[in-house]
Amino acid sequence: MLSEIEKKRTTVDIYGQQYVIVGTESSGHVRLVSSLVDEKMREISSKNPSLDISKLAVLTAVNTMNDYIKIKDRLERLEAELKRVKD
Amino acid sequence: MLSEIEKKRTTVDIYGQQYVIVGTESSGHVRLVSSLVDEKMREISSKNPSLDISKLAVLTAVNTMNDYIKIKDRLERLEAELKRVKD
Repeated sequence: MLSEIEKKRTTVDIYGQQYVIVGTESSGHVRLVSSLVDEKMREISSKNPSLDISKLAVLTAVNTMNDYIKIKDRLERLEAELKRVKD
Repeated sequence: MLSEIEKKRTTVDIYGQQYVIVGTESSGHVRLVSSLVDEKMREISSKNPSLDISKLAVLTAVNTMNDYIKIKDRLERLEAELKRVKD
């Protein structure tokens, strides 16, 4: 019988609120990721003190998505370069 | 006289709320990034319909940060590999 992939539950604190994150990642990884989100929220909040928490979190997601898209572009260019170098 | 780097203001709609994003990126880029955040919020919300918007936004930020960290690791490995291949 196939067993389901085991899912871990990790409780983290982000911007003063607790979240239970469920997933296959290690608790250490989940805590690292959460601490980076917490840090980015505090950074954005310090520049925009009037934002409520949901707007702050959305802008944190936008900011992180922007970083993600940029690094994804860089990765794609690098993969193409590596392919050229290897051929 | 040095002029300040020009900052653009782009108004976007994310999960039914309007945000003015200020930065040096093009409006097209800001709109792309925002639409990806909107999409991710809807995806997470459909799996967790009881979440309020601020928790949903925080979990979207966590999810995006997780993608970012993973792709960053892949980029770093690839950079090391490219360096080996070139040397």
